Amino acid sequence: MSWLRLALCQIDPVVGDLAGNAGRILDMVRSADAADADLALFPELALTGYPPEDLLLRAGFVEENLETARKLAAETGRCAAVFGFVDAGRDLHNALAIAARGEWLGTYHKELLPNYSVFDEQRYFAPGRGARALYDIAGVPVGLTICEDAWAPAGPVATQAAAGAALVLSANASPFAAGRRAERAAMLATRAADASACLAYCNAVGGQDELVFDGGSMVFDATGRMVAAAPQFEEALLLVDLEVRPVFRKRLLDPRGRATLPLLPVVGSGLPRRVGPRAPAPTPPVPLEGAAEVYEALVLGTGDYVRKNGFREVVVGLSGGVDSALVATVAADALGPDAVHTVAMPSRFSSQGSLDDAAELARRLGVDHRVVPIESLHVAFLEALAGDFGGRWPGLAEENLQSRIRGVLLMALSNALGWLVLTTGNKSELAVGYSTLYGDTAGGFDVLKDVEKTLVYELCRHRNRRGEGDGPIPVEILEKPPSAELRPDQRDDQSLPPYEILDELLAGYVEQDRTVAELVEAGHPAELVRRVAALVDAAEYKRRQSPPGVRVTAKAFGKDRRLPITNHFR
Amino acid sequence: MSWLRLALCQIDPVVGDLAGNAGRILDMVRSADAADADLALFPELALTGYPPEDLLLRAGFVEENLETARKLAAETGRCAAVFGFVDAGRDLHNALAIAARGEWLGTYHKELLPNYSVFDEQRYFAPGRGARALYDIAGVPVGLTICEDAWAPAGPVATQAAAGAALVLSANASPFAAGRRAERAAMLATRAADASACLAYCNAVGGQDELVFDGGSMVFDATGRMVAAAPQFEEALLLVDLEVRPVFRKRLLDPRGRATLPLLPVVGSGLPRRVGPRAPAPTPPVPLEGAAEVYEALVLGTGDYVRKNGFREVVVGLSGGVDSALVATVAADALGPDAVHTVAMPSRFSSQGSLDDAAELARRLGVDHRVVPIESLHVAFLEALAGDFGGRWPGLAEENLQSRIRGVLLMALSNALGWLVLTTGNKSELAVGYSTLYGDTAGGFDVLKDVEKTLVYELCRHRNRRGEGDGPIPVEILEKPPSAELRPDQRDDQSLPPYEILDELLAGYVEQDRTVAELVEAGHPAELVRRVAALVDAAEYKRRQSPPGVRVTAKAFGKDRRLPITNHFR
Repeated sequence: MSWLRLALCQIDPVVGDLAGNAGRILDMVRSADAADADLALFPELALTGYPPEDLLLRAGFVEENLETARKLAAETGRCAAVFGFVDAGRDLHNALAIAARGEWLGTYHKELLPNYSVFDEQRYFAPGRGARALYDIAGVPVGLTICEDAWAPAGPVATQAAAGAALVLSANASPFAAGRRAERAAMLATRAADASACLAYCNAVGGQDELVFDGGSMVFDATGRMVAAAPQFEEALLLVDLEVRPVFRKRLLDPRGRATLPLLPVVGSGLPRRVGPRAPAPTPPVPLEGAAEVYEALVLGTGDYVRKNGFREVVVGLSGGVDSALVATVAADALGPDAVHTVAMPSRFSSQGSLDDAAELARRLGVDHRVVPIESLHVAFLEALAGDFGGRWPGLAEENLQSRIRGVLLMALSNALGWLVLTTGNKSELAVGYSTLYGDTAGGFDVLKDVEKTLVYELCRHRNRRGEGDGPIPVEILEKPPSAELRPDQRDDQSLPPYEILDELLAGYVEQDRTVAELVEAGHPAELVRRVAALVDAAEYKRRQSPPGVRVTAKAFGKDRRLPITNHFR
Repeated sequence: MSWLRLALCQIDPVVGDLAGNAGRILDMVRSADAADADLALFPELALTGYPPEDLLLRAGFVEENLETARKLAAETGRCAAVFGFVDAGRDLHNALAIAARGEWLGTYHKELLPNYSVFDEQRYFAPGRGARALYDIAGVPVGLTICEDAWAPAGPVATQAAAGAALVLSANASPFAAGRRAERAAMLATRAADASACLAYCNAVGGQDELVFDGGSMVFDATGRMVAAAPQFEEALLLVDLEVRPVFRKRLLDPRGRATLPLLPVVGSGLPRRVGPRAPAPTPPVPLEGAAEVYEALVLGTGDYVRKNGFREVVVGLSGGVDSALVATVAADALGPDAVHTVAMPSRFSSQGSLDDAAELARRLGVDHRVVPIESLHVAFLEALAGDFGGRWPGLAEENLQSRIRGVLLMALSNALGWLVLTTGNKSELAVGYSTLYGDTAGGFDVLKDVEKTLVYELCRHRNRRGEGDGPIPVEILEKPPSAELRPDQRDDQSLPPYEILDELLAGYVEQDRTVAELVEAGHPAELVRRVAALVDAAEYKRRQSPPGVRVTAKAFGKDRRLPITNHFR
């Protein structure tokens, strides 16, 4: 029986920040070393950040990444460091380096390159052709894999275990989606048990444009039991003294009884076998579930977008409705109340109740709040085009006008005071185009872009239940019927089906890519399905000009769903 | 010696319009039949339009495409039809069907799947594993290939010729880029000559979101001589009586002298050998060059975007500057002057000269023109936030304000009157962010999105030289220094380097993906390069929210260039 001290370094790399990421990796390697770890594992492409996208097409970027990787390897100490970088020979590879005592021990090239959903890895990388070596760390033969490699049942985890690895490392940049952590844990447990090998999964953490990497790194023993786990949504250094029992390896044999996979050569690291007692594994955190998990994803994704893009303060237009209330609350949790400014911009159609609710929300959150009425601007615009419209603006044009005046005001505050505008459109609205382009969609980041309306309510209730008292969001905001307040007595359900029904249809049409015919066959009313599908299709041009936002489902609007604007399929 | 009558059917399919595209194909097959053609060749994915993008992830869409393909094949007559569709078995394939006399003769799967530039074919399709048959058309053994297949020197064209094909068909959806037609012609001539086989290249035509397919279908004999060509930028039925001489085929031999490629089986079509005299090939059109070619691409791309998205009229804000002048001119050429509305929206900083120039342009184009001064709106906004800004708006905020007021006015006209707003930002401005988000970028389609400022002037001069008289664009517009007129005496060169220098730097940084260090090494002033690169990087968020526009270079902003917004690489 052997054991080794493993350090899973769950860090938040910034895309393109080669020097900063290298510094962060080196700090963590030194912390791991100081904690007497044998092996420090970092996320996929930790050096470049993930996904670097077309930065990879710049030869100068790839060259600088290589130089930085070499320097980093040269600075390693006793503890072996395994970190993601871009390797470049005839082709580019999504790669792992393993280095210790200043020496580059080896390189692994990712074999399975995802090219679906938000992933475009075949645009950049050539697939690796299998590991050429294992690495002896404290007497344990260790294999290296990257992310997608672990998802194939007969893939690199299985082949490296069959070739002699007792511990397989998996370096990841796995984006968050609701419930994905549990799915990963189940898959990894199966993979470890099937391979009869320990499996250490290290994930990145942090927001990168629309993606949130949720961390939640995990370690499994060779029976598939989870022996340690890191928290989600924060950086962590998880130390695990991992017991690695020798196992009988069932060799893969060809029809003539010869082993199809020779044992891989094992490269030494100089780290001696462990003696003495192991430390017990730290108690794993309780996994987040449901709305709680999504809420933390929104906080991290929003906070990282703001911070990594050099902003310190944000501004949110408060309508008195539930969407803007949730956005302001997430922003206050992500950045602190001092960094959040809110503005109510009432028109002649705004109710006093909405104004009061907005002010009360701001008071409870402890954020700056101001009121800028738009009546004079509204009138000035009506007059400016009265002649063109024969004296009277059509209803839709006047509704959009109010929303656009508010967009201009928020952008003026942004330009003058350096505040990033957070927009408040939810996924249901974005799906059916229930929004005003350059109006309520005007801004830098759309916090609720991937949150359907019914989940908006759940998230508000979750946040109000957290901590003491009533929570920040006034109950009036949660209980009144949704309204855009752009004409007298307007209510969302005059234009749209009830959100419970709409969200169910959208799950089928958008997230599951079912056709109208299939949804009708599944029992939804034909006319309603056709109407909703037509709205979704017709709103594609609006979505293309909408700001990015946090992805929290397995299919967000964005890189996940690439539909033509010009599209006659009905 | 044999010959066959070939019909290259250069059509404009609409993405998703399965029934419409099938109807268009059938009409052309019937025309080809009526002209006594033996073989009618259509573009790649002619049935679905190209690129169908994530429509391919909807099982119902793929199924409907298969049914439509089968029905279409059943309606073919004497002339064999070769058309693109999506084949589906265990995987999806970018495929060609060949059918005649109501019978489905065979299917070919594209072997080489592009996954670079604007292409994402590995997201959807599995590669074909080589042709399984050739097809006897009027005594000539014919092979089938699709687009990228023709670009590899030792690819499917060479292997099918070596396996017995005397004529190889190439079905394409090749997007336009300036000069690309000549590049294609040179490549195809080489491919035909190397394979000692005739080569018929049929391209799609028409605009699809940002892409323009430029047609320009071509036929080469087995020596690589171009024997016929169709025009660019319009639908065409090109009839060619193609002489196919028997050739001595050099077989590919393995080291033991055995043929590595067996001859492929030949499927009969029932079309008899040709006797009697051939018709001479029609005189090929003179290829368009330089600005003339780009101008036609803009006209087709803009016209198709407007028409295919169900609009009939457009509106352009005329500043009196060169960009909006060119956009209005392209729109008038694409849609007719009656479909074009122009609006001048002078602020306190607009010059009388600009107003006069705008009116004169509209007069010469014969388009609707109106003037909506924005002074009262300008004042109303200044007052609305005066308190928040301590009495005085910062300069940048006030400049953007004027642009956004204009955006709101144009969108009000659009909402009320159903006109699509064409925006006027050129590629140079879009690159460095010299634009106001939700202001001059507000609209449905950005005609000049991929046209750098120096080319804007060339295009204006080209259009003015075309036809009689002075042309539509007043010389004053071409001769005054560029200015946004958002503050007193503003000129673009106060904020930006001269456009000749800027455009050269942008070609290096954006189109050639060179780094700052590489550009400095190439002799550009270091400080200037750093400044321009920083502007380009910082404007990524603006580009993400900009409307689509016509791609006319090999690297446009859009699917061609996928950079993160959050990006610390400098």
